[in-house]
Amino acid sequence: MPDQTLADVGEFGLIARIAPLFAQGEHVLVGPGDDAAVVRTRRGHDVVSTDLLVENRHFRREWASAEQVGRKAAAEALSDVNAMGGRTHTVTVGLAAPADLPAQWAVDLAAGIAQECEVAGASVVGGDVTRADQVVVAITVIGSCELAPVLRSGAQPGDVVALVGRQGWAAGGLAVLTRGFRSPRALVAAYQRPEPPYEQGPLGAAAGATSMIDVSDGLLADLGHVASASGVAIDVHTAGFELDEPLQAVGAALGVDPMQFVLSGGEDHPLVATYPGADAVPEGWRAIGTVASGEPQVTVDGEAYEGARGWEHF
Amino acid sequence: MPDQTLADVGEFGLIARIAPLFAQGEHVLVGPGDDAAVVRTRRGHDVVSTDLLVENRHFRREWASAEQVGRKAAAEALSDVNAMGGRTHTVTVGLAAPADLPAQWAVDLAAGIAQECEVAGASVVGGDVTRADQVVVAITVIGSCELAPVLRSGAQPGDVVALVGRQGWAAGGLAVLTRGFRSPRALVAAYQRPEPPYEQGPLGAAAGATSMIDVSDGLLADLGHVASASGVAIDVHTAGFELDEPLQAVGAALGVDPMQFVLSGGEDHPLVATYPGADAVPEGWRAIGTVASGEPQVTVDGEAYEGARGWEHF
Repeated sequence: MPDQTLADVGEFGLIARIAPLFAQGEHVLVGPGDDAAVVRTRRGHDVVSTDLLVENRHFRREWASAEQVGRKAAAEALSDVNAMGGRTHTVTVGLAAPADLPAQWAVDLAAGIAQECEVAGASVVGGDVTRADQVVVAITVIGSCELAPVLRSGAQPGDVVALVGRQGWAAGGLAVLTRGFRSPRALVAAYQRPEPPYEQGPLGAAAGATSMIDVSDGLLADLGHVASASGVAIDVHTAGFELDEPLQAVGAALGVDPMQFVLSGGEDHPLVATYPGADAVPEGWRAIGTVASGEPQVTVDGEAYEGARGWEHF
Repeated sequence: MPDQTLADVGEFGLIARIAPLFAQGEHVLVGPGDDAAVVRTRRGHDVVSTDLLVENRHFRREWASAEQVGRKAAAEALSDVNAMGGRTHTVTVGLAAPADLPAQWAVDLAAGIAQECEVAGASVVGGDVTRADQVVVAITVIGSCELAPVLRSGAQPGDVVALVGRQGWAAGGLAVLTRGFRSPRALVAAYQRPEPPYEQGPLGAAAGATSMIDVSDGLLADLGHVASASGVAIDVHTAGFELDEPLQAVGAALGVDPMQFVLSGGEDHPLVATYPGADAVPEGWRAIGTVASGEPQVTVDGEAYEGARGWEHF
């Protein structure tokens, strides 16, 4: 390890080395490793998560307006509390940016963050701004759950996997933008502005979801986190998805199977949860798979999936 | 403003433009503008603050070990809750870093953060790591106050200004390092590792502090924040400080008045508070000034101060 770089060890390798360093106090109900942490406070609890967005890695200034970047950064973080079945009440923002960044860009970014937080019912209460070579946005969300937080680790054999919200559109939009196109506009718009289903996290928890996660790394990658944490095998049924028309159009134009956007795409931030039976799946969610006992793995229509499952950050 | 850059508007100019964009919910007891924000939660409250540290701006890898950078980053953030009279229970960490960063550096950084959080009694419960051109560390602290949070805005004419903790040492150490020296080692060590008086924030609150702030931008600059927020005039008495021997040595070696390190230095994170009379000043704190009515300003021994008062981040 002395000679290894972050690229060598990878995001998850680094996290595995770092996590044991942090002793968890008795008040920590859920520590590192889920969508958000949960801590007991003097008279309640906090659900907490932090996300970073880095220019040219998570966004490009030419592909999205500052306001869109702000909305997206906020949505990504707010979505983590949603995936615990909670609601965010409080947000802080850190902005590191080059001195020659137009001040209007920073103001528009803040406006986008404010708008998205308003949608989710949260207040931005503070933060920090400082100079850096590159724009880095750090967003921390603090919320609470009405019921017990829904973890990644609760999926049971026999459960039904269900999804709510748009999935695959952002990946389709990104595929279009990286090839220099600007349409189909619905997909580009989806990439520029996710619309996480903020009402559905608490509803899913109330409906008895046994596990829940938001899709941010890619559907199969994120279901892989659920499979590992729960110690179960998950099979995704592609018949559960309608392939929306814009996805079909992009698949045809680019000569790729549009189902790959659905299976591997992140950044739409829908919720995926497991429920104890089809009857428990709430209205608006679509059943997309089943949970079985066995080695933790995610299969697609009963078989191993050969395509990309998501992405790592190093 | 359309053509202005962040360098044109400055840190505080940018904050002034951004802050009005964020609507504050009814649960927000203290919004942007103090050391930390305070929000009412379902059955309690949270004291929240976020800080950013950027490589080559807040630290240099050749001037401090990764562990020292971690301790310093954590200390800076933890100190904000201390300055509200609170204790931090929960911390999240965001790390953006180049792919070729030695993984050991990131692990040592995390170890330093863990150590400092342990000193303050806080748990690191989660965070995010991602790739960037430059190391950026984002730390969010969440805590609570036993009593009412102590704000910047409560100083009253007639109050005594008092300080607890080391002040000016970090600035002396930085002055030494920037000139290529490594001694006096006590000052270099102070720059590399602040030791905020974590016990004193809650003690100051219990003793009846009317206002409190931690020194992070510079003593006069931070007292300026108190003067503005409270609408009072503050006079600092240099006779209140003992000029510690290492500071005298550096002043002599560099041919500067060592009092400038005390008056303008940041990064030691001592606490400065105002108390209603000398009798209220707790043990271990030293009286360093007085509060009077009048235009918000900070004077030194009754006169305007000609030297630097601190620094801005753009």
